[in-house]
Amino acid sequence: LHSVPTIHDIYKAQKRLAQQAVDTPLLRSPKLDQKTGATVFIKPENLQRTGSFKFRGAYNAMVQIADADKTKGVVAVSSGNHAQAVAEAGQILDIPVIVVMPHDAPKAKIEGVWERNAEIVFYDRNAEDREQIAAQLIKKTGATYVPPYDHLDVIAGQGTAGLEAAEELKNQGVTPDIFLCCCGGGGLMAGMSIALKDAFPELEIYAVEPEEFDDTGRSLRAGKRLENTRKSGSICDAILTPMPGKITFEINRLLVSGGLTVTDDEALEAVRFAAQKLKMVVEPGGAVALAALLANKLDIKGKTVLIILSGGNTDLVGMSAI
Amino acid sequence: LHSVPTIHDIYKAQKRLAQQAVDTPLLRSPKLDQKTGATVFIKPENLQRTGSFKFRGAYNAMVQIADADKTKGVVAVSSGNHAQAVAEAGQILDIPVIVVMPHDAPKAKIEGVWERNAEIVFYDRNAEDREQIAAQLIKKTGATYVPPYDHLDVIAGQGTAGLEAAEELKNQGVTPDIFLCCCGGGGLMAGMSIALKDAFPELEIYAVEPEEFDDTGRSLRAGKRLENTRKSGSICDAILTPMPGKITFEINRLLVSGGLTVTDDEALEAVRFAAQKLKMVVEPGGAVALAALLANKLDIKGKTVLIILSGGNTDLVGMSAI
Repeated sequence: LHSVPTIHDIYKAQKRLAQQAVDTPLLRSPKLDQKTGATVFIKPENLQRTGSFKFRGAYNAMVQIADADKTKGVVAVSSGNHAQAVAEAGQILDIPVIVVMPHDAPKAKIEGVWERNAEIVFYDRNAEDREQIAAQLIKKTGATYVPPYDHLDVIAGQGTAGLEAAEELKNQGVTPDIFLCCCGGGGLMAGMSIALKDAFPELEIYAVEPEEFDDTGRSLRAGKRLENTRKSGSICDAILTPMPGKITFEINRLLVSGGLTVTDDEALEAVRFAAQKLKMVVEPGGAVALAALLANKLDIKGKTVLIILSGGNTDLVGMSAI
Repeated sequence: LHSVPTIHDIYKAQKRLAQQAVDTPLLRSPKLDQKTGATVFIKPENLQRTGSFKFRGAYNAMVQIADADKTKGVVAVSSGNHAQAVAEAGQILDIPVIVVMPHDAPKAKIEGVWERNAEIVFYDRNAEDREQIAAQLIKKTGATYVPPYDHLDVIAGQGTAGLEAAEELKNQGVTPDIFLCCCGGGGLMAGMSIALKDAFPELEIYAVEPEEFDDTGRSLRAGKRLENTRKSGSICDAILTPMPGKITFEINRLLVSGGLTVTDDEALEAVRFAAQKLKMVVEPGGAVALAALLANKLDIKGKTVLIILSGGNTDLVGMSAI
């Protein structure tokens, strides 16, 4: 019923994104290496256009919309990062954008959508179904739906982050042992895993999720898609999805070794470490892979580890009063 | 009396630093390009080991200290970034370190020195002479003095940031028109200018300094070293030096086109832009080149501009209360 992206879809996405997305570097931190006893490479997608990896997938999907459909616009649902990404791509491609966002999304994300001239329809995470609201909007406008993760072009776009990381690691003659990926709906992990497993077939990949929102970890163990009981209540707002996507889970069940969880406090400690030691602004949901390292969730001593910082759109790290 | 480093000293420094310093990337920001109308490349030395470029020069100088002198230790004077750099190099090379630091240095910098097991002797910027205090310590201990900027090996070390930027720009087929450099004593600007002018002879280079602390700008115009009237009172603590160095000025008067100044408010605005839009933690003194861009201090429309973010050790950008 649906098709799964291949490495060739990711190569094509990389060409489409060439003049638009930021080719984020791989960073090193002697401090982090010391603390973990591992050799850690950081892919900082908080430095990506719009402050998260989401721009890759959104632009890769939207640049392929037929001219005749562009004026009808795009509708998206998002906790805030996909929203900003779709809004940014809309500005570049001259496509009107409406996003369905939870009313409790961080201020930085709401403002990020408005300043890109997109419209927001707010909903309640606990009481309303965002997909239903989106469906009504699409029925009314004829807009194209751009899903946050469960879509071939979106997954292929996110995969370009994995392609870049693989290319840079190969340039440096490095073979990573482990890849830790922040996981919400699983689009980033699916896309990056396709690219990274193509380059490094022996790589072990782990999904990192907030405690009590470990739908992907539990689904991997069960061999089928399971839902989270809670729908809100973690500070990791970017990765609180109800359950793994159909397409993303089909990929991740094949390529991902398992799941790890971190508490909100561990995520916050990683946000703090990123600001103070790595000198980067990272949001809690974007810091869970780092949190898993800092909280010793996996034995990585002596290993070469790739982690992603997936976003930096947060109200938490700001200027203190002087 | 003193000798000036050449591009070959910088190549040698690069070899010494290969396994120790971070090879910081060149970053792009579509947001910043849009805002300035220029093509801006950012060299983020806030991501360098110890949170500023200073590690490059300190390590390059200290790794050359003779074994017999190592146990006698190193003495340095610093507003905080050179202090942390010398302390870090001391830990790597097993050399005891004492630094003379102003008592009003940011907490983040004082803690950064202590956590690297170096000793701090505090002084008053307005009432005491830090060089004199250092001279007394050296007389007592026989320690080696590692100056913050006016030293061949220190300048050559800082120059490696310029070499990396030049190599990366050449890889990308880019010829920069303008380089904006944060300027205190002028060591970073001197070292980077040697490397960048070697690669791009037509490059225009500007020193950026805080208003009322524009000793280098005024000295360049006068053709001789002039002193600042004030010794403290700007939030740009990292670059409040009394006057240009002898060696650094000899280099900068030949290679630098002129000086620009920014106000404290403009520096703070750049710190805020860096946190919110670039997702990086930058200290005020390390953000003045970005501040000059954002405040339109130079006509750069349509130009290709390289700027440095020189450090990120600040108490200003932290976690807000939740």
